[in-house]
Amino acid sequence: MDAWRACVGTGRMDLALRHDYQESLALIQREIGFRHIRGHGLFSDGMGIYRPYSFLDDEHVRHSFTYLDQVVDTYLELDVRPFLELGFMPDQLASGPETVFWWKGNITPPRSWSAWADLVRATVTHLVDRYGLAEVRQWPIEVWNEPNLPQFWLNADADAYHRLYETTAKTIKEVDAELQVGGPAISPGTDKYLETFADFVIDNDVPIDFVSRHAYTSGPAFHVPFGTHQTLAPASRLLEQFALPRKQLAGTPLADLPVHITEFNSSYRPDNPIHDTAFHAAYLAPVIATGGDLADSFSYWTFSDMFEEEGVPTALFHGGFGLLTHRQIKKPTFHLYAFMARMGGPELSRGPDHLISADSTGRVTVLAWAPVDCTDLRNSPETHHLRLSFPVSGPSAFVLRSRVGEEHGNVWAAWREMGSPRSPLPRQLDWLREAAEPAREHGRLPVTDGRAHLDLTLGRHEVTLLEITPVADETPSWWNDSHLLGGPS
Amino acid sequence: MDAWRACVGTGRMDLALRHDYQESLALIQREIGFRHIRGHGLFSDGMGIYRPYSFLDDEHVRHSFTYLDQVVDTYLELDVRPFLELGFMPDQLASGPETVFWWKGNITPPRSWSAWADLVRATVTHLVDRYGLAEVRQWPIEVWNEPNLPQFWLNADADAYHRLYETTAKTIKEVDAELQVGGPAISPGTDKYLETFADFVIDNDVPIDFVSRHAYTSGPAFHVPFGTHQTLAPASRLLEQFALPRKQLAGTPLADLPVHITEFNSSYRPDNPIHDTAFHAAYLAPVIATGGDLADSFSYWTFSDMFEEEGVPTALFHGGFGLLTHRQIKKPTFHLYAFMARMGGPELSRGPDHLISADSTGRVTVLAWAPVDCTDLRNSPETHHLRLSFPVSGPSAFVLRSRVGEEHGNVWAAWREMGSPRSPLPRQLDWLREAAEPAREHGRLPVTDGRAHLDLTLGRHEVTLLEITPVADETPSWWNDSHLLGGPS
Amino acid sequence: MDAWRACVGTGRMDLALRHDYQESLALIQREIGFRHIRGHGLFSDGMGIYRPYSFLDDEHVRHSFTYLDQVVDTYLELDVRPFLELGFMPDQLASGPETVFWWKGNITPPRSWSAWADLVRATVTHLVDRYGLAEVRQWPIEVWNEPNLPQFWLNADADAYHRLYETTAKTIKEVDAELQVGGPAISPGTDKYLETFADFVIDNDVPIDFVSRHAYTSGPAFHVPFGTHQTLAPASRLLEQFALPRKQLAGTPLADLPVHITEFNSSYRPDNPIHDTAFHAAYLAPVIATGGDLADSFSYWTFSDMFEEEGVPTALFHGGFGLLTHRQIKKPTFHLYAFMARMGGPELSRGPDHLISADSTGRVTVLAWAPVDCTDLRNSPETHHLRLSFPVSGPSAFVLRSRVGEEHGNVWAAWREMGSPRSPLPRQLDWLREAAEPAREHGRLPVTDGRAHLDLTLGRHEVTLLEITPVADETPSWWNDSHLLGGPS
Amino acid sequence: MDAWRACVGTGRMDLALRHDYQESLALIQREIGFRHIRGHGLFSDGMGIYRPYSFLDDEHVRHSFTYLDQVVDTYLELDVRPFLELGFMPDQLASGPETVFWWKGNITPPRSWSAWADLVRATVTHLVDRYGLAEVRQWPIEVWNEPNLPQFWLNADADAYHRLYETTAKTIKEVDAELQVGGPAISPGTDKYLETFADFVIDNDVPIDFVSRHAYTSGPAFHVPFGTHQTLAPASRLLEQFALPRKQLAGTPLADLPVHITEFNSSYRPDNPIHDTAFHAAYLAPVIATGGDLADSFSYWTFSDMFEEEGVPTALFHGGFGLLTHRQIKKPTFHLYAFMARMGGPELSRGPDHLISADSTGRVTVLAWAPVDCTDLRNSPETHHLRLSFPVSGPSAFVLRSRVGEEHGNVWAAWREMGSPRSPLPRQLDWLREAAEPAREHGRLPVTDGRAHLDLTLGRHEVTLLEITPVADETPSWWNDSHLLGGPS
Repeated sequence: MDAWRACVGTGRMDLALRHDYQESLALIQREIGFRHIRGHGLFSDGMGIYRPYSFLDDEHVRHSFTYLDQVVDTYLELDVRPFLELGFMPDQLASGPETVFWWKGNITPPRSWSAWADLVRATVTHLVDRYGLAEVRQWPIEVWNEPNLPQFWLNADADAYHRLYETTAKTIKEVDAELQVGGPAISPGTDKYLETFADFVIDNDVPIDFVSRHAYTSGPAFHVPFGTHQTLAPASRLLEQFALPRKQLAGTPLADLPVHITEFNSSYRPDNPIHDTAFHAAYLAPVIATGGDLADSFSYWTFSDMFEEEGVPTALFHGGFGLLTHRQIKKPTFHLYAFMARMGGPELSRGPDHLISADSTGRVTVLAWAPVDCTDLRNSPETHHLRLSFPVSGPSAFVLRSRVGEEHGNVWAAWREMGSPRSPLPRQLDWLREAAEPAREHGRLPVTDGRAHLDLTLGRHEVTLLEITPVADETPSWWNDSHLLGGPS
Repeated sequence: MDAWRACVGTGRMDLALRHDYQESLALIQREIGFRHIRGHGLFSDGMGIYRPYSFLDDEHVRHSFTYLDQVVDTYLELDVRPFLELGFMPDQLASGPETVFWWKGNITPPRSWSAWADLVRATVTHLVDRYGLAEVRQWPIEVWNEPNLPQFWLNADADAYHRLYETTAKTIKEVDAELQVGGPAISPGTDKYLETFADFVIDNDVPIDFVSRHAYTSGPAFHVPFGTHQTLAPASRLLEQFALPRKQLAGTPLADLPVHITEFNSSYRPDNPIHDTAFHAAYLAPVIATGGDLADSFSYWTFSDMFEEEGVPTALFHGGFGLLTHRQIKKPTFHLYAFMARMGGPELSRGPDHLISADSTGRVTVLAWAPVDCTDLRNSPETHHLRLSFPVSGPSAFVLRSRVGEEHGNVWAAWREMGSPRSPLPRQLDWLREAAEPAREHGRLPVTDGRAHLDLTLGRHEVTLLEITPVADETPSWWNDSHLLGGPS
Repeated sequence: MDAWRACVGTGRMDLALRHDYQESLALIQREIGFRHIRGHGLFSDGMGIYRPYSFLDDEHVRHSFTYLDQVVDTYLELDVRPFLELGFMPDQLASGPETVFWWKGNITPPRSWSAWADLVRATVTHLVDRYGLAEVRQWPIEVWNEPNLPQFWLNADADAYHRLYETTAKTIKEVDAELQVGGPAISPGTDKYLETFADFVIDNDVPIDFVSRHAYTSGPAFHVPFGTHQTLAPASRLLEQFALPRKQLAGTPLADLPVHITEFNSSYRPDNPIHDTAFHAAYLAPVIATGGDLADSFSYWTFSDMFEEEGVPTALFHGGFGLLTHRQIKKPTFHLYAFMARMGGPELSRGPDHLISADSTGRVTVLAWAPVDCTDLRNSPETHHLRLSFPVSGPSAFVLRSRVGEEHGNVWAAWREMGSPRSPLPRQLDWLREAAEPAREHGRLPVTDGRAHLDLTLGRHEVTLLEITPVADETPSWWNDSHLLGGPS
Repeated sequence: MDAWRACVGTGRMDLALRHDYQESLALIQREIGFRHIRGHGLFSDGMGIYRPYSFLDDEHVRHSFTYLDQVVDTYLELDVRPFLELGFMPDQLASGPETVFWWKGNITPPRSWSAWADLVRATVTHLVDRYGLAEVRQWPIEVWNEPNLPQFWLNADADAYHRLYETTAKTIKEVDAELQVGGPAISPGTDKYLETFADFVIDNDVPIDFVSRHAYTSGPAFHVPFGTHQTLAPASRLLEQFALPRKQLAGTPLADLPVHITEFNSSYRPDNPIHDTAFHAAYLAPVIATGGDLADSFSYWTFSDMFEEEGVPTALFHGGFGLLTHRQIKKPTFHLYAFMARMGGPELSRGPDHLISADSTGRVTVLAWAPVDCTDLRNSPETHHLRLSFPVSGPSAFVLRSRVGEEHGNVWAAWREMGSPRSPLPRQLDWLREAAEPAREHGRLPVTDGRAHLDLTLGRHEVTLLEITPVADETPSWWNDSHLLGGPS
């Protein structure tokens, strides 16, 4: 039902040690409230877990949790649980030197399968010891990331991945049979991979508790210095990708497994300015609003621009994935999620441009969005009209509208008007934070025969939240506006 | 120069023990930053300073600072200094039973003048011991409050006040000759009182370091349950009152003393809804902007609705003086002060509807306000136009506009639309906080020959802040908006 | 089982608005963690709930929750629930002028029983609206305080109390039948009162969900200025009082009702220095450790010295009830509770001078206390020896001992050595906070045949906590202490 | 005078982005309060400052301050200023692949001297723009680290360092002539290096505002897995090294320059357990107490165990330099500094085992330490006696003693008793924090003829702080201890 908040993506795990990261995640949790968080790099050297005393020393290995404990403590304090992704390979356990990203995640199979199993076992056992079995059973554990791509897994070798999955899944189940393990975490592009993987686990009776894949809609990249531009397919293509695993597994023994879309976004590039735009929120709105029909979770990649796969960002706005920039400035897509988080109760009705819910207190919430042209921003309609109707108890309603679009809550526009300052001064950061807030409008809505009617006009790329509550009028009987500057003369 | 921020008023001193008070004052200091704070009740029983062991026991008296230390520690932590007002009379030191306010401040002279002097001496000495002489010398000490009114000083007996002033001032100077003492803190209505007081201190060579009075513009009260309506004189009448002490003392030995307006507001009633309106900010804007020409300080009465002179407020909005309501909701007049606090540097120019400043970094700030009709809110102009011009360095400027008026940042209107909920739910408080924020607009301003020109339209009762900064453009040479959805094809 | 933490007492309800109070309660909750909190004054004027527009105006009454919401929000944020006590009488609803305490709680019956019922109904209904029925059903509601004493209820009129109880209980049940209501909250001294009350509710079929009474052990008062001394009965007398209600109600229809001791302490005076001593913790230790056998809750009166029944305290240490002084300085009795809070799991064994528990992780905790002479502090034994034995898994155990007594964690002694400074300087407060901490000792304990044996010597008035955990030794095989200043030569 | 607090060392600069780091530094600043902080890695890739668009791209270089701003903002918020160390070389500006440390700081000269100058200029200019010239002039700027060692500067090539120094110093002075630049930051072992460097700057008229070097006392290393043991020279050898620059430069034009010991410790290894011991505080006590005679600053290397030069630590206690471990556990040497921070006012007297100060309020503070045997810990004396005498105003004094040594505040001992848990559970961390606190003792000290005399016994490796304040006795005349359990009978 609220699969949209089931998970969110993050930059590599050791970034969670940072103060700015923790401030950002705290804000995200306060205003959105995700249930799980997933990122790369658990076993990469920055986390310091696999620690032989010296090079290739198999005798004096410590599995060390100095940092992992800090990361997980932080998550739990912020009321979000890890969605563990097991990878990449510790340098000293790797079978080769190949790496991915600026921060050099090693993508090769382990040089020792038993040492890998020891690493997995020690880590999972430590987590169970520290956080308790009841807690850790709620953390899905995914094996590796996008093994269907040679950038992420040496030669995209499927047999090697199957061995990795089997070794890992069995090791986890030895720690506790109810821990949840899954995969194959594939990127779009080689969809058949999932079927082959499914055959493998079925044929070999390998444990599996969920299946996972990723979804993106961007086309070929046009690079400029410190940035990338890409074409985008319509957002409906994301929904098609969300739906695919259930289709592919229908009729197999895996048909009823949970399906997790463990990454999705428009572009998979952390330097594509489309992520910073008002367009982006309107583009994704129907996906967030309805994706829960198709998958058990779909995890926005990523909550923050704190993300170093292409190096340390060189400017405050740089096309990062984040709902937030460094220093907690809210992009329009942040508001899309925050608006969803303020909706309450079961769905009342739905349309191509809106979603209506109502909770048990009589509060009605409406999310509405403008349609977009995803081939040319300038062709998106300048205005968009909706006529909505919904039940309201009581004689009238208070309505608060929160608007984000080209005109409002568009902080990227403000930043560009400022001259695109790469390292803004504190004063400029304050202004940007103000410019990033949605516009607010409020008023009374008449109710007739138990229903309210609303004519709504959205601007270009607008996403709007309406919160409507029945009015219990406590205005005193003697109140008279005309007496504000003195009583009756 | 910035006399407007020299001091702010507060409800009685022991309210400063409260958490909500401290949260509110912290917000005030963060966004406005007053230098001093003044309120009643230092010696009233709620502060527990004068503590005889038993009734009228003159032998076992303790001067006790359990609460005073908490209050002053809080002020200094929040970077605001006390402007001490010595009063009212401790019950057990009083010569009669007469009190003022719901919280029963005793308004009678001391039954023992030496015990009063002991109280003053012990208190001031304790403050010097705890906070240091250098610090306490920066705290003006005012003797009593509005002794010209019989509600505040028994029979408004001027001779008795003169004796109180003399006793007190001499006692303070015995502790340290550089401590600053003053009075007579009179209300408007009996302006001659100041001249009589001045004659007394001059003739008797009584120490005096500053003179003080109050200013209000409201007329007769029309009471309704839990509220009061009053007519208002034009705001210029406040400025006339600010100017009066210097006029009255011209040519006397007191001519060069600092003049402190230790209270001012439109209405002196803590239950007059005019304080909650957008009108109120526009009404006071010219006073805040120019009052510093006439007095060394003018202290807005009061920073918060936490104020119990007429009992505990019965509704969130109740016509309190506060810049903030309980629970830190910002009224329009809060924003007027916050806008002033964001202006910087010396005044560039001034008009009947605006003030322009510029600081050393090239930032220009404009405060503009709409004229008001203070006999009938509905007659205030619907729109008001200004044409401004000011120097800007560089080829263009970024401008951020923050707007408060009938349409924006008008939280009282939102509260009334909600049905005037007396004890709003947490959710309603959140909405009110959002509705209370100014509207923000931003854009680029062209600069020609080193000057920018601006046509500005204000709505009814609007107060606007413009912050204008020269743009140092860091937009890369290769940037091209049309590539956002893919590069050149 | 942990009835000792079921409830704690507090000064009157509006003190909960204070910052120092909230800081103190936060500390209490962090280190002890009570489940409920109970104090006087919910309906007294300081809370501002009963608000007629003018004197005896029955037409324009507001029930106002401006402060109550702040208080309850604070409690819930600090994870403690109200144990509501309905009283005292609002001044304008009172039938007479009689009051109790410095803060003047009115002790007379209502002048209008229907207006009282309206007040109760409005308050309970508001709480249900704001906090939800499921939540409020967990808040016991007690009718009045110590109606058996003429200081607290006019003439200690039992019939009038019965009418008050009946009116109130029925009103509450009209709001919701599962809300819990009880009484009669009597003080020790007229124990029969409970039986009469029980007869009344049984005979008249009046709703009742729990019974309550208080327990104190102090004898006649010897007053000195700003203080009181009293003799004390042995602590076992508290346990006898805890046990009495179950005895008295045995065989009646009320026999199975929960019994709440809604106040207990040694002395009932808030100015008796015995509360500040190390003796006090040792005196109460057996009561805290075993009182849960006899009652469903027993509520220490009170958690903080912030308490104004005898006026504002005139010195940091003044014999207040508090576990904490103003400004969060921990008295020995605080540590007794904090030690209890660190015990875990079910009781293993118990003796006249100790209690042993063990939790599921193998951790064993011991609370041990020295016997006291409650007729003369100087006769309490200088040392006390215990020999304890308990099961420990593993070859050895780590033990951490925390000691409080005359020698350690005795901040009152430090304060007296300082010269009893009534308003300590910040530096002195820091030193007192340090002096207030328990002494800590640690070491390894050998384990033989699965048991550890411990010879323990306690100093005068000592209360000690031992925390014993099995050692899982991770010391590396190559570790050698003698190499600390260089390897083998 | 308080050169001991002028500076402290830190792990590499980007560690300052971490939350645990910021928490630790906040604690350090609250309880000690250093004025400057110095560490490596400003220009290393983790800080992301030097950012060419692509490999060796000299056209599209950004100097990027995304992280630097966060680091410096943090420092200034915590009231500590950077002592900038310019180094190491950005990978893409390096002339070779040689690196130092686990985190791979590049140690080669720049491949382009003008690009290096651009980097320095851009960085310093940015800091001046953001923080103001008045602020940045207070930040010493040191060129590189230990260029006399081939591990830190390719081939320890002195000519190349001279060129680096000259290029850098001149570039800095072009930004502003009053910025402070210095070097050569050499390690002990090749002391002549400073003289050669001095000749170079004098002969070539190169700007220099201070000279710097390091000091350590450890001998050859004996390695064990995850640890190192070393012999130690007597602590007086540190003082000799502090004194050396002034001796070497006497009579030269650089004779009057400030001398900064920009690193010192016993061992230079971050995995030597000696850093964790009680011995370490006693060993360093005379150095901290008297080093200010010999140098303008001496910077303890480092404030926290958060330090990755040998990789991520594998256990909570691992012999790190830190005054604090990860998660803010205080080692004995922390307390040595915290004790120094609590001393006040000018030195009264000094001895081989103590230092006495007195401030203007009459407070006397004594730091006393036990002598150590630095060849064998077990030979350090078991007890050490001092007889001290000092002036006290008033008839008696309150004394608070804080003790750290083998018996008290020795958290490493507690950790070992626990079984050396590498990743302690939260509960164990709490216990360790408690075990880490000094023991506190307090009492009254008689004063005779204006002086107090004190016989003091220290335990093995003890460092003790005494805080002595004159007593102003406020004990009431009627106080009588024997009345505590009732008045006179």
